[in-house]
Amino acid sequence: MKALLLVAHGSRRQQSNDEVVQLAERLKNNCSEQYKIIHAGFLELADTLIPDGIKKCADDGASSIIVLPYFLNSGRHVVEDIPEIVEQTQPDYPDIDIKLAQHVGASEMMMDLLIESANSTS
Amino acid sequence: MKALLLVAHGSRRQQSNDEVVQLAERLKNNCSEQYKIIHAGFLELADTLIPDGIKKCADDGASSIIVLPYFLNSGRHVVEDIPEIVEQTQPDYPDIDIKLAQHVGASEMMMDLLIESANSTS
Repeated sequence: MKALLLVAHGSRRQQSNDEVVQLAERLKNNCSEQYKIIHAGFLELADTLIPDGIKKCADDGASSIIVLPYFLNSGRHVVEDIPEIVEQTQPDYPDIDIKLAQHVGASEMMMDLLIESANSTS
Repeated sequence: MKALLLVAHGSRRQQSNDEVVQLAERLKNNCSEQYKIIHAGFLELADTLIPDGIKKCADDGASSIIVLPYFLNSGRHVVEDIPEIVEQTQPDYPDIDIKLAQHVGASEMMMDLLIESANSTS
């Protein structure tokens, strides 16, 4: 069973964290055929932290987990911190294939999304 | 002449700022018919700040400017800080219509972008 873990930075502002959890909920409605298990996780400052998010996916019966960083820039969090946490957590789940997706800002679709956002203003 | 100002937070890490400037450059290649003028601007910590970005657009001959926040969450920066700066800058350019676009994270396309990012991993 494939799982998707959407990972955001985490904020002291609860509403920002709630937005990420709601986004993960909406993902469930949009790609439940591909990903039977979907959770939200945070790098810091908010529940659920990444290892706990991976555990949630494992507890739900995941055979593979894709960790998707909800970040725009390829900063230290994306390049170092998140990969490091995933690498440190993988040995706890030897039977689960945990893979890191490209961060959101690296998507080929970002260009279209920006143009669509700009155009929807006028 | 329509202008587009892509506004990011700004980082102490120059590479993150460069990514935003490069994204604005790529936008130029993708929507130059709609937006003859495209610049990048930052809320803080980096050149060009938002009022300077608006000035650049004005100096290039913009008749209207769309300010597009390159932010994922509707935090204080998106809800208060950027609208406030735009509002304070507008009177300096009475002949230019400056409009604020929805932040990137609010785009209807974000769902598809997330799914595409996840799928491109495996």
